[in-house]
Amino acid sequence: MNQTHPIPVIGILNVSDRASAGIYEDIPGKACAELLREWLSTPFELDYKVVPDEQAVIEVELKRMADVIGCALIVTTGGTGPAARDVTPEATVAVCDKLLPGFGELMRSASLKYVPTAILSRQTAGTRDRTLIINLPGKPKSIRENLEVVFPAVPYCIDLIGGPYLETRETVMKAFRPLNK
Amino acid sequence: MNQTHPIPVIGILNVSDRASAGIYEDIPGKACAELLREWLSTPFELDYKVVPDEQAVIEVELKRMADVIGCALIVTTGGTGPAARDVTPEATVAVCDKLLPGFGELMRSASLKYVPTAILSRQTAGTRDRTLIINLPGKPKSIRENLEVVFPAVPYCIDLIGGPYLETRETVMKAFRPLNK
Amino acid sequence: MNQTHPIPVIGILNVSDRASAGIYEDIPGKACAELLREWLSTPFELDYKVVPDEQAVIEVELKRMADVIGCALIVTTGGTGPAARDVTPEATVAVCDKLLPGFGELMRSASLKYVPTAILSRQTAGTRDRTLIINLPGKPKSIRENLEVVFPAVPYCIDLIGGPYLETRETVMKAFRPLNK
Repeated sequence: MNQTHPIPVIGILNVSDRASAGIYEDIPGKACAELLREWLSTPFELDYKVVPDEQAVIEVELKRMADVIGCALIVTTGGTGPAARDVTPEATVAVCDKLLPGFGELMRSASLKYVPTAILSRQTAGTRDRTLIINLPGKPKSIRENLEVVFPAVPYCIDLIGGPYLETRETVMKAFRPLNK
Repeated sequence: MNQTHPIPVIGILNVSDRASAGIYEDIPGKACAELLREWLSTPFELDYKVVPDEQAVIEVELKRMADVIGCALIVTTGGTGPAARDVTPEATVAVCDKLLPGFGELMRSASLKYVPTAILSRQTAGTRDRTLIINLPGKPKSIRENLEVVFPAVPYCIDLIGGPYLETRETVMKAFRPLNK
Repeated sequence: MNQTHPIPVIGILNVSDRASAGIYEDIPGKACAELLREWLSTPFELDYKVVPDEQAVIEVELKRMADVIGCALIVTTGGTGPAARDVTPEATVAVCDKLLPGFGELMRSASLKYVPTAILSRQTAGTRDRTLIINLPGKPKSIRENLEVVFPAVPYCIDLIGGPYLETRETVMKAFRPLNK
């Protein structure tokens, strides 16, 4: 980060053929934005985009948000299932330097409390330089159920990769940072 | 699927040097067939094969069952451990378009309730076009313990990849399909 | 193993820039050695090394311990997080013939009982010929919490890959071997 401590930017990438064609309203992206505003006390800006389920397009957007905008965090929604058009995890794996399998494991395990089809989600997470990328499902209800279980580890993860220091509203979302590494 | 709604085919591939040499009886394959008949109310046909623990041979069979026979589902048994001859997951990864890590995670997690050596199983699952492939262990008792935890998600997964609509006998196996995607 | 039943060797590889530079004492390596002596009743020798967080250096050491020394087991400590210098899992994946995802899944899941940041650990395990390699975190407290959950499966895993027969002190660490494969 530079000397002037710019406001952190968080990217929200809604991956959906129908939302990008204007057939559906972008509800998943709005659900993410609302959760981030509810949980984070640190001021942040959003970089927001809706794209179709095309791996090359998703990769270009993830790279732009990470490398050009310098997002501390990018959350994607949708495209994580087994259907032919679901390619968000492939795009994520392709642009990440390091994968974090624990995110997908915990989100699937948490979702299993609600639906047995949670195992069909191929969502993952990883880092690209100083940006943490997390895949989320497309359903707004599932977005909260998934993001709330991994979010306590998100600010410390961003610390570790050299991103901005994010603080949460402890009453609604308690971030965890180990006292000594 | 074509207009005439052909009977769905399910492939059972028993991977075992000893069973393929006729030294052992093919108990794992029979255990799978019995479970499928117990759980599925939709009529189906079986495509059944016993092969040795040779990656190239397993791949050829998986491709034949998927591409030539058009299986909606293939279950493999055996060859998922850490021993030198255990190569079923490698063959599965090689032929799949998409991997579904949630299957292996849940099956190992469920098996851990029975034996601490459950973590030695490298079993996975994935899709090849319209075919879902699931690795199972070789022991009949473990086959049930593994397949019963993931099976509630199997019919919906097959829906999502464009396969036939499978129904289960709800009293013994409750499949789950979300009301709206 | 040859006819004379040599004493099994276990490798401990502490991956740490600061410990290898002598800035930190090698506490993680010593914590591993202590646990192994506490749990294993079979006599064994240690091969012990501290290296910096350099993927090529870690790979060379893992290969030396496996191929030249013939270690039955290698445990690494440190370098499993998301930071730029954390490359132990990458080195492990590069030298292994087979990966054992169940180890990382179970260790992360067990660590989650202590800290929500457990999902940031990318630790894995795998085999290189007759050697089992397990990544552990760098903090001594976490080392015990992680190794104790997977260790019951370690002796049988080493049996399956053709390594020496290891026995544990049942009062403190109960190894599990299935009665019939």
